[in-house]
Amino acid sequence: MNKPNIVILGAGYGGMMTTVKLQKSLNINEATITLVNKNDYHYQSTWLHENAAGTLHHDRTRIPVKDVVNMSKVNFIEDTVVSIKPDEKKVKLENSVLDYDILVLGLGFEAATFGIPGLEEHAFTIGNINSARLIKEHIEYNFAMYHNEKEKNQGRLNIVVGGGGFTGIEFVGELANRIPELCNEYDIDKALVRVINVEGSPSVLPGFDPQLVEYAMNSLESRGVEFITGAMLKECKPDSIVYQKDDKLEEIPTQTTVWAAGVRANSIVEASGFQTNRGKAEVRPDMRAPDYDDVFVIGDCALIMNEETGRPYPPTAQIAIQESGIVAHNVKSLVQGKDELEAFEPKILGTVASLGHTDAIGVVLNQRKIFGWSATVMKKVIDNRYLLKLGGPGLLIRKGKFNIFY
Amino acid sequence: MNKPNIVILGAGYGGMMTTVKLQKSLNINEATITLVNKNDYHYQSTWLHENAAGTLHHDRTRIPVKDVVNMSKVNFIEDTVVSIKPDEKKVKLENSVLDYDILVLGLGFEAATFGIPGLEEHAFTIGNINSARLIKEHIEYNFAMYHNEKEKNQGRLNIVVGGGGFTGIEFVGELANRIPELCNEYDIDKALVRVINVEGSPSVLPGFDPQLVEYAMNSLESRGVEFITGAMLKECKPDSIVYQKDDKLEEIPTQTTVWAAGVRANSIVEASGFQTNRGKAEVRPDMRAPDYDDVFVIGDCALIMNEETGRPYPPTAQIAIQESGIVAHNVKSLVQGKDELEAFEPKILGTVASLGHTDAIGVVLNQRKIFGWSATVMKKVIDNRYLLKLGGPGLLIRKGKFNIFY
Repeated sequence: MNKPNIVILGAGYGGMMTTVKLQKSLNINEATITLVNKNDYHYQSTWLHENAAGTLHHDRTRIPVKDVVNMSKVNFIEDTVVSIKPDEKKVKLENSVLDYDILVLGLGFEAATFGIPGLEEHAFTIGNINSARLIKEHIEYNFAMYHNEKEKNQGRLNIVVGGGGFTGIEFVGELANRIPELCNEYDIDKALVRVINVEGSPSVLPGFDPQLVEYAMNSLESRGVEFITGAMLKECKPDSIVYQKDDKLEEIPTQTTVWAAGVRANSIVEASGFQTNRGKAEVRPDMRAPDYDDVFVIGDCALIMNEETGRPYPPTAQIAIQESGIVAHNVKSLVQGKDELEAFEPKILGTVASLGHTDAIGVVLNQRKIFGWSATVMKKVIDNRYLLKLGGPGLLIRKGKFNIFY
Repeated sequence: MNKPNIVILGAGYGGMMTTVKLQKSLNINEATITLVNKNDYHYQSTWLHENAAGTLHHDRTRIPVKDVVNMSKVNFIEDTVVSIKPDEKKVKLENSVLDYDILVLGLGFEAATFGIPGLEEHAFTIGNINSARLIKEHIEYNFAMYHNEKEKNQGRLNIVVGGGGFTGIEFVGELANRIPELCNEYDIDKALVRVINVEGSPSVLPGFDPQLVEYAMNSLESRGVEFITGAMLKECKPDSIVYQKDDKLEEIPTQTTVWAAGVRANSIVEASGFQTNRGKAEVRPDMRAPDYDDVFVIGDCALIMNEETGRPYPPTAQIAIQESGIVAHNVKSLVQGKDELEAFEPKILGTVASLGHTDAIGVVLNQRKIFGWSATVMKKVIDNRYLLKLGGPGLLIRKGKFNIFY
């Protein structure tokens, strides 16, 4: 190849870290690197629930691309990907078309509503900076409205979160911290506010240790969160949600339904003709798409099977960041004409779920369970470690979480 | 009279200052003083436009009643007045009925929409803490929504203010300061945002010196405010307003119409059978209602003719505060069995209209015109002077405006 074009789609965890690693490891004469992203900023999608609850400003969550990408080494294009044509080695953007020699596809997730009526129209999702800050504003608006109506509307004070997985639980945890502030701000009796988590499984946080799950539910319930488990959302209306539990239909009046129960890979993966499994490209060990030698897929768009469990690894930031190391290494090998690509081996170092900023649960190396203050500290350590990797100490100082005593 | 019941309705400028003066001048054995107010706080209605624009937190604008009223000397009842029966000397509240020997009626203003279709349903008014903070939230919500819709809705970024009087102008002034912050917060191009003041007269700020009006319009236009004068609002729709100018109907798409062009006295005045002029009790020189010797009317519910101009004095905080001096004095005289009541003589010390927190215009004693920085300082001096009168140095320090350099 004669100075190949490397095109990286998406500045999420995977795409961003790949870019940062390649700009360090490749000489400017070896390849042209182009990063494409919808916005001129990267954001930490694992922090969005805090922006949505209003406990963290969204500017803490996002990082301008130019702050971590060396613009003299990387071409940055702010545009939206429309489609990929892997046979022609072209990417169609809204405003231009790019040719590539090596593609890194890291276009992330989108919400999946499984055809539940009204969800797409009336429910909010915690998908990006825009949708997260909208939830914050929407809740505040409804609280502000409450005392402006003669007929009090309880639906303005009910917040229903669909899904008791990671995002749903972390979000209700933040809400539990936020509600007292909101009540104070809008002169509302805290006893009137309901935060309700609706989950289809018999328990929340599926896959977590049952002891930790119990700890989490106790912690959240003590701060006013209600759980309705074994309940399937049936319909989302503009001012209520309907769910089924024990063969009975129930309805909760609410102006605010947040859907946190389903994500899927960006639908561009499927639409572009890659061979997929559950909407994702089931990548080879070297992280390349099954059917194209010049396309790497990373993060939530890639599916990697866990041989031990026979189930795919979950789409986490941790895995996307780890993948970037192999992807960057293998891209460099291709550029330098080496045939031997390395295989990716995920190392799950631990998982911590926050329960608001005052509590957390987690499992760290060797299945050690942690909870409470030590888990909140661990969560911040994980977050800060990523910032250090991404942008060095300067970025860590600007965006890191250091207030370990809350 | 044998320890008469003094009942004061409303903790606005007039009622609040009357209460504070009476609790100082009357001995607890001379009379029972009862203050009735809808909320447990007093607020400065002249600051509400800042809360509505989001440039000042509403807690700066309100003052808990207990912070200035001595609860061991005054009975405070948090309730809403339903009706007054002056012939029976009774006041009906939502939750009880009060008897009085002397009544001070200071129930303030309400919005008047003059039957313009849709205004009551779809327009906001800057009437109290609840409605002011709702406007702030509404604007933020619309800005947050903007990037969440595929089809961009310009109506979310257009803010129409109906009325170029005092409130309308002060509000657009604050908006002019606020818009750049909002654009920054929600990633919106400032050039897209429109703040439009629609006024029926040929000029805004009727009654103000033409030179100062010109100064004000220049100042506001230079910060992006648009003026449409000689235009009558014809209809307010959920997502637009229609006005007529030069016999042509025009429509502006907007989600946010703020109606600042009309207030009237609380309709309870008229409904309770007091003899009224333009909905207000045209009080005698001693501030008593024309038809009842035991009822004083104060503030926006009272009408006082300016003999020089043949027009009523405007319903301002300044006049309400001055009236409280005479009302308190005359109430005390009645309690002490004196027949000679004093007559009220308004002294217009000056009028300052802010144009956001960086500019203002005004007229002070002897018709001296002021504008710019000195006028902004004068405005703060006026505001701080009131706080000092109401609650002494402690209140001034807590709620005063001291940042004269912005």
